[in-house]
Amino acid sequence: MSKGRVEAFSDGVIAVAITLLALNLPLPNVATPDLAGYLGLRWPSFAAFAVTFITIGIIWVNHHALMRRIKSVDTTVLFLNLMLLMTVCLLPFTTAVMARYLRADSGENLAAAIWSGSFLLMGLAFVVIQRHLMVVKPELLTDGMTPAVRRAVLRRNAVGVMPYVVATAAAALSPYISLAICAAVAIFYALPATTEIDQRTAA
Amino acid sequence: MSKGRVEAFSDGVIAVAITLLALNLPLPNVATPDLAGYLGLRWPSFAAFAVTFITIGIIWVNHHALMRRIKSVDTTVLFLNLMLLMTVCLLPFTTAVMARYLRADSGENLAAAIWSGSFLLMGLAFVVIQRHLMVVKPELLTDGMTPAVRRAVLRRNAVGVMPYVVATAAAALSPYISLAICAAVAIFYALPATTEIDQRTAA
Amino acid sequence: MSKGRVEAFSDGVIAVAITLLALNLPLPNVATPDLAGYLGLRWPSFAAFAVTFITIGIIWVNHHALMRRIKSVDTTVLFLNLMLLMTVCLLPFTTAVMARYLRADSGENLAAAIWSGSFLLMGLAFVVIQRHLMVVKPELLTDGMTPAVRRAVLRRNAVGVMPYVVATAAAALSPYISLAICAAVAIFYALPATTEIDQRTAA
Amino acid sequence: MSKGRVEAFSDGVIAVAITLLALNLPLPNVATPDLAGYLGLRWPSFAAFAVTFITIGIIWVNHHALMRRIKSVDTTVLFLNLMLLMTVCLLPFTTAVMARYLRADSGENLAAAIWSGSFLLMGLAFVVIQRHLMVVKPELLTDGMTPAVRRAVLRRNAVGVMPYVVATAAAALSPYISLAICAAVAIFYALPATTEIDQRTAA
Repeated sequence: MSKGRVEAFSDGVIAVAITLLALNLPLPNVATPDLAGYLGLRWPSFAAFAVTFITIGIIWVNHHALMRRIKSVDTTVLFLNLMLLMTVCLLPFTTAVMARYLRADSGENLAAAIWSGSFLLMGLAFVVIQRHLMVVKPELLTDGMTPAVRRAVLRRNAVGVMPYVVATAAAALSPYISLAICAAVAIFYALPATTEIDQRTAA
Repeated sequence: MSKGRVEAFSDGVIAVAITLLALNLPLPNVATPDLAGYLGLRWPSFAAFAVTFITIGIIWVNHHALMRRIKSVDTTVLFLNLMLLMTVCLLPFTTAVMARYLRADSGENLAAAIWSGSFLLMGLAFVVIQRHLMVVKPELLTDGMTPAVRRAVLRRNAVGVMPYVVATAAAALSPYISLAICAAVAIFYALPATTEIDQRTAA
Repeated sequence: MSKGRVEAFSDGVIAVAITLLALNLPLPNVATPDLAGYLGLRWPSFAAFAVTFITIGIIWVNHHALMRRIKSVDTTVLFLNLMLLMTVCLLPFTTAVMARYLRADSGENLAAAIWSGSFLLMGLAFVVIQRHLMVVKPELLTDGMTPAVRRAVLRRNAVGVMPYVVATAAAALSPYISLAICAAVAIFYALPATTEIDQRTAA
Repeated sequence: MSKGRVEAFSDGVIAVAITLLALNLPLPNVATPDLAGYLGLRWPSFAAFAVTFITIGIIWVNHHALMRRIKSVDTTVLFLNLMLLMTVCLLPFTTAVMARYLRADSGENLAAAIWSGSFLLMGLAFVVIQRHLMVVKPELLTDGMTPAVRRAVLRRNAVGVMPYVVATAAAALSPYISLAICAAVAIFYALPATTEIDQRTAA
């Protein structure tokens, strides 16, 4: 299995998943008279859509950073990557659950925990691949990554998972806190400066 | 992040979004006796489908023209491109809203504004990327683009957004005007001569 | 626009469209007790799915044969190809219409005409591209295609459209005739020998 | 038709099919108060999703192993591959049937037979391609595959189909047996060691 095929397949799955997100936006079955009111009431769908969209975009960027650092893949990378893709494919579902329950009177805490938890799961799946590469099989990496750099990359990934731990736990208090945290993470990584500093650290 | 990967990922998202459009065409749940009448009444779905399909096709062509002019991408391009793709992914939703409300007694103006507005948003997202390349980071461009050519490209993009400003504003008068303007733009760009002249100007 | 990008984008759209076909297979909303009866009654869905699936597969093979013969694309090819892709994207919809109406008491003739007609439209879109290349712009072709070969290729394409003309007309008599003709065409082209002879003629 | 295009198209179809799987996860239409109960009752959907996801992942890995061994494709490979892709595209449908009927009082045996049977069909389609390459047209293979290796590869494929024969037959006893067998196969192949040994045998 060449690295290029794994990248192309992963890109395909991520591109489909990110586009399917919009299938769950609230579309009135028949033309309800008050369209503005209908859509306004359902703002959580649009907020959750935007946050998940950007978060998938970030994982896509990170996935390429990961692939750029390796020379070849072994079977373990292949299947760990499949697990990562499974968590990505779950996001349209968990985002729809969050969108439908955010304003509900009951079930909203669980829905927010499912949504934040699916980001957490995706982050953990990413860390597991990264750890396999940095710790177990550094021979798969391109040359020139010193142990110190490898530790830094892994530490940065682990730290990146933290906000999702907090967002998932905070769902017990209020789904709006989970939404705010996940949105903040998306905006933080979308700010060019942040990521450029990141890349400098990694390179 | 190589330019090639950004292109491939963008192509993937655009290909999925353009194909998903047809999922919202009106399909009777059970076999209603008067199929011709059923489909005939719902002509707005087919009209909106065709216009959005061609418009996505045009943005795809323009996206490649944009990518052809650059040597490499920075993080800002990456995230601005993600924003552009988000507007593309919204089109199946906004097209379905337009299709369902065009003939409605109420909500039809808002629906047309949402639809034309989503084209406007896509056009603006494109201009923002283009501006970043032409004004802020010309060093990302391939050689040989003089300041005059760069200004011309940017001006042409900005002008291309104008019809959508008018279509969105005209939605307040009648959704049919918005439909007519967006359809005219699609046909205009689909006419080979037009685009060939465009390319000569840009090259 | 490079030929490679047009191919990749077309492949993407065709791959998504062929996979979306299965979304319209009849899935009981709740577990109806008589699953065998439920699915058995809906055999037209499976028959139409199989015929459309193979037909899209054939157009994909033909699309590559077409692309292999050309050196570069002009804007006309770009937009004619977009029109061809639009007809492909309509197939999940027209197939679902056919599937739901085949056994209905009314509307079944129109449904069969829509389904066969969508294959006819796709075939015609293909002939229009081919004609542009073979007659209007032979300079886009790879070297070594004599006028005689070009005429043969175009004639073969035009002949290939004929069964769909008959199937669409025959829908007025019975939708089963349309189904039988389209199925026969799919099987005919799927038989290896047939296509291998075809390729020998074309090469 | 180049081998590369067949690979890219197959990857596209498989990537879309694997991502569409999640569309059938159970999403409450309105916010039902007891979200945990709602999802808990529907655990078969998540179990079937996970097993099918991994199984498609495995067929993707196997598909690449198959493509790596060949130099070029003939028309028969092209159409046999299309048949394989058709079985893959059916999996979101058969998985949804299994998910909805697993806990039902009637139809659950047929549903499990349909689901396991669709894996069996996919496995058989794979064996048919493999057999065509190993027995009928070894000249399409890369050099260095001795008759003994070819027989070993084919035998391994045929053996891999066996569990699905058992799972399909066992559906008559209980759908849970089918689920357990298909899950066990997915886990078995997902264990790195297993597949690495496999590759050593094949190489």
